[in-house]
Amino acid sequence: MTRAVYPGSFDPVTNGHMDIIDRASKIFDELIIGVLLNQSKKPMFSVDERVNLLEHLTENYPNVTVKKFDGLLVDFAHKEDARVIVRGLRAVTDFEYELQMAQTNKVIADDLETVFLTTNLKYSYLSSSIVKEIASYDGDIRQFVDPQTEAEIRSKLNDNGGK
Amino acid sequence: MTRAVYPGSFDPVTNGHMDIIDRASKIFDELIIGVLLNQSKKPMFSVDERVNLLEHLTENYPNVTVKKFDGLLVDFAHKEDARVIVRGLRAVTDFEYELQMAQTNKVIADDLETVFLTTNLKYSYLSSSIVKEIASYDGDIRQFVDPQTEAEIRSKLNDNGGK
Amino acid sequence: MTRAVYPGSFDPVTNGHMDIIDRASKIFDELIIGVLLNQSKKPMFSVDERVNLLEHLTENYPNVTVKKFDGLLVDFAHKEDARVIVRGLRAVTDFEYELQMAQTNKVIADDLETVFLTTNLKYSYLSSSIVKEIASYDGDIRQFVDPQTEAEIRSKLNDNGGK
Amino acid sequence: MTRAVYPGSFDPVTNGHMDIIDRASKIFDELIIGVLLNQSKKPMFSVDERVNLLEHLTENYPNVTVKKFDGLLVDFAHKEDARVIVRGLRAVTDFEYELQMAQTNKVIADDLETVFLTTNLKYSYLSSSIVKEIASYDGDIRQFVDPQTEAEIRSKLNDNGGK
Amino acid sequence: MTRAVYPGSFDPVTNGHMDIIDRASKIFDELIIGVLLNQSKKPMFSVDERVNLLEHLTENYPNVTVKKFDGLLVDFAHKEDARVIVRGLRAVTDFEYELQMAQTNKVIADDLETVFLTTNLKYSYLSSSIVKEIASYDGDIRQFVDPQTEAEIRSKLNDNGGK
Amino acid sequence: MTRAVYPGSFDPVTNGHMDIIDRASKIFDELIIGVLLNQSKKPMFSVDERVNLLEHLTENYPNVTVKKFDGLLVDFAHKEDARVIVRGLRAVTDFEYELQMAQTNKVIADDLETVFLTTNLKYSYLSSSIVKEIASYDGDIRQFVDPQTEAEIRSKLNDNGGK
Repeated sequence: MTRAVYPGSFDPVTNGHMDIIDRASKIFDELIIGVLLNQSKKPMFSVDERVNLLEHLTENYPNVTVKKFDGLLVDFAHKEDARVIVRGLRAVTDFEYELQMAQTNKVIADDLETVFLTTNLKYSYLSSSIVKEIASYDGDIRQFVDPQTEAEIRSKLNDNGGK
Repeated sequence: MTRAVYPGSFDPVTNGHMDIIDRASKIFDELIIGVLLNQSKKPMFSVDERVNLLEHLTENYPNVTVKKFDGLLVDFAHKEDARVIVRGLRAVTDFEYELQMAQTNKVIADDLETVFLTTNLKYSYLSSSIVKEIASYDGDIRQFVDPQTEAEIRSKLNDNGGK
Repeated sequence: MTRAVYPGSFDPVTNGHMDIIDRASKIFDELIIGVLLNQSKKPMFSVDERVNLLEHLTENYPNVTVKKFDGLLVDFAHKEDARVIVRGLRAVTDFEYELQMAQTNKVIADDLETVFLTTNLKYSYLSSSIVKEIASYDGDIRQFVDPQTEAEIRSKLNDNGGK
Repeated sequence: MTRAVYPGSFDPVTNGHMDIIDRASKIFDELIIGVLLNQSKKPMFSVDERVNLLEHLTENYPNVTVKKFDGLLVDFAHKEDARVIVRGLRAVTDFEYELQMAQTNKVIADDLETVFLTTNLKYSYLSSSIVKEIASYDGDIRQFVDPQTEAEIRSKLNDNGGK
Repeated sequence: MTRAVYPGSFDPVTNGHMDIIDRASKIFDELIIGVLLNQSKKPMFSVDERVNLLEHLTENYPNVTVKKFDGLLVDFAHKEDARVIVRGLRAVTDFEYELQMAQTNKVIADDLETVFLTTNLKYSYLSSSIVKEIASYDGDIRQFVDPQTEAEIRSKLNDNGGK
Repeated sequence: MTRAVYPGSFDPVTNGHMDIIDRASKIFDELIIGVLLNQSKKPMFSVDERVNLLEHLTENYPNVTVKKFDGLLVDFAHKEDARVIVRGLRAVTDFEYELQMAQTNKVIADDLETVFLTTNLKYSYLSSSIVKEIASYDGDIRQFVDPQTEAEIRSKLNDNGGK
């Protein structure tokens, strides 16, 4: 049995993330989505809000669970008894950074394997920060996120009086 | 008739930007330079100062106009009735980011086309931030910007007591 | 008025090529598709067959014409009185090569401008050689080329007794 | 249960290939190494010799089998009832090509998932063709391939009177 | 006689930096390590602490000296009468940035030559910021830095009450 | 004293090669240009013709010599008692390949160091094969090669009745 971890900020989760979750859930026996509590960045959604959104969006995936984590990814993977780290690849710049992280993690935790899935072409341009930027100017984000995520982004932006 | 928009921060305009403006003005019937009012970055020049500098530098181009804009590029292009977005390409890292923006803009505004021109080799290393960094250490920037721009950068740096 | 040239081998024309033709025809007043007679490569279709296929596929584009050419691209562009060379960009490897050609052409013909359009994401993986390889193993190519092109590829492969 | 296919030419198998096989065999329940019978290239080893070498080198991996195949990779994967295609990633040029193949395969066989593993840094520079080139000039290849493979390469080169 | 400058932040120095220093010291007659006093970044170690650490680590290299510098690299190289700037290359993203700096420096100081060495594969994933991030979560950094550097990083982090 | 080797096919030598030779000759005490006798490629100029052209073009460089070589580069460098291999870098695709060769050479000959110089921007698009292609169609190559090389290329092409 292979348990895999899919880490990220998911601030907010996009259709590109959901595509990777869908595909990884079919390859691995268990998939744990790890939501990073990054204390140095100011997120739009709190880590608990992000966990809730992901739990809602994955409720039809029996082998997927969502957890928050702090600290090193390899420590989180070890604690969860996972053997595989899943990452999505979009473009070359991504690839360089991802390769660097994968090699570093291999050095500090030799028992973990990083596995890359390529994002569906339809979502290959997509990132959470682009979604937030478009939304902040009242642009249409319905092709990028699911309806509930869209509603929550709109609500956040209204609370803050726009951007 | 094809009207094109060339967006950017132009803080300050460099010889590389001028090269793209010169070439784009020969290809398209009308070219509108869009100066981005980016509220999250602290520019060296105000958006009005940047518009003025560009208007001065393009005064011999009858089919070029300069306008400031705020918000999404696609909204600006629509408001100006432009069909084409012009971007300069310098290097691979550029290309990745530019491709991402072009694809995103295609999704949210299908009627707009992004067109890339390659920067003249002589300017392929050049960026506004490198110009500002060299100037802040009293380095020679006369090969990178025109004389008036150089004078205004020097004046700005003196006002601030150096960097 | 801006006349542009879109050069290529088009052996065979794919949906990715047609996407670039469609978009370029909307930006430029006249578009000439230049079909390269490359004597060092052994094509699947003769240059005249490729011209015919492209003429058929562009018959609803009043500002598009198809011509064959031999020799240097810049000589062809000059002969056709074109000011712009159109190229599609798919990926980084493409970009390097395209940039090299664009810069070389700029040196030997300073009056010509190379303009890049990004291929629709749906076709960003697509190339003529992949289409031919899949077809040679009886794979399904209907998502990559139009029905007539598919029929002509099948007919060619049958004439040759398969690959 | 997840069955994966690891396709390649393996002409000859290198330590880099063996590293991917070792890691993939720990992630997936069954791993089938697919040795490509590429009729357009002239290999150093026949497809049967390559299968034999790989069977020898993987005899301690109970969940690994070696098979030859001809034609489209997706057809081979379907015939073997595999759900996953495994590929090793070394560098950016690799990545571009691999991404193109992965996206094409996704279009013609939506039920298959391509999964990338990063090659161990120690082998990130390694390719079968470099091994053959070094060996042809009597260079030392013992750090690149296992002893039996080295012996067979030497024997091949002697049969041919050197390169 | 060729004198070379190897500039950097070295906050802190890693085994990757030491690998470049070792190799450059064998190629050039004299090597001056230039430690950048970057006023806009908040370093973990003061510039004097970084100079001290590097002096300790290079005490067995008779042709290596360590100096701090502020301002433009080309001005530092001129002041030190150096003809060569040494840089390590790790990956493609590195390369783009390094190329841009090398070309800019060539324009503003034509007598200086930038020379690139490739980092040992073992350290090709390594950066000072990754070392600091891993250390801040109590991860094992002994494969990335020498023992004294490790001790000083630990001491710094304890002073700050963790990250 | 540092002796360096600059290997290549030089078929024919371009202004880009001459730029690297000029710069390397200023950094290293002795520079040996190694002209590769590549038996699998069909060159325009014989290896002796290429050596003669390079000797003519470097006659004012007292510390530069030209030699032909066959076999592995590391064997040639050892035979010549050189400690450094010089390579020019033009673009990212170059870089990948060059990095692969540098790492391989490091493994089979640990005492040799590969050093990269960046090509002058003016020549960053230039390659021997582009020069030959342009010349074969009677294009102007005077900006790419020196007058004697141009004359010899024209003479070769006339001997062959054009391309």
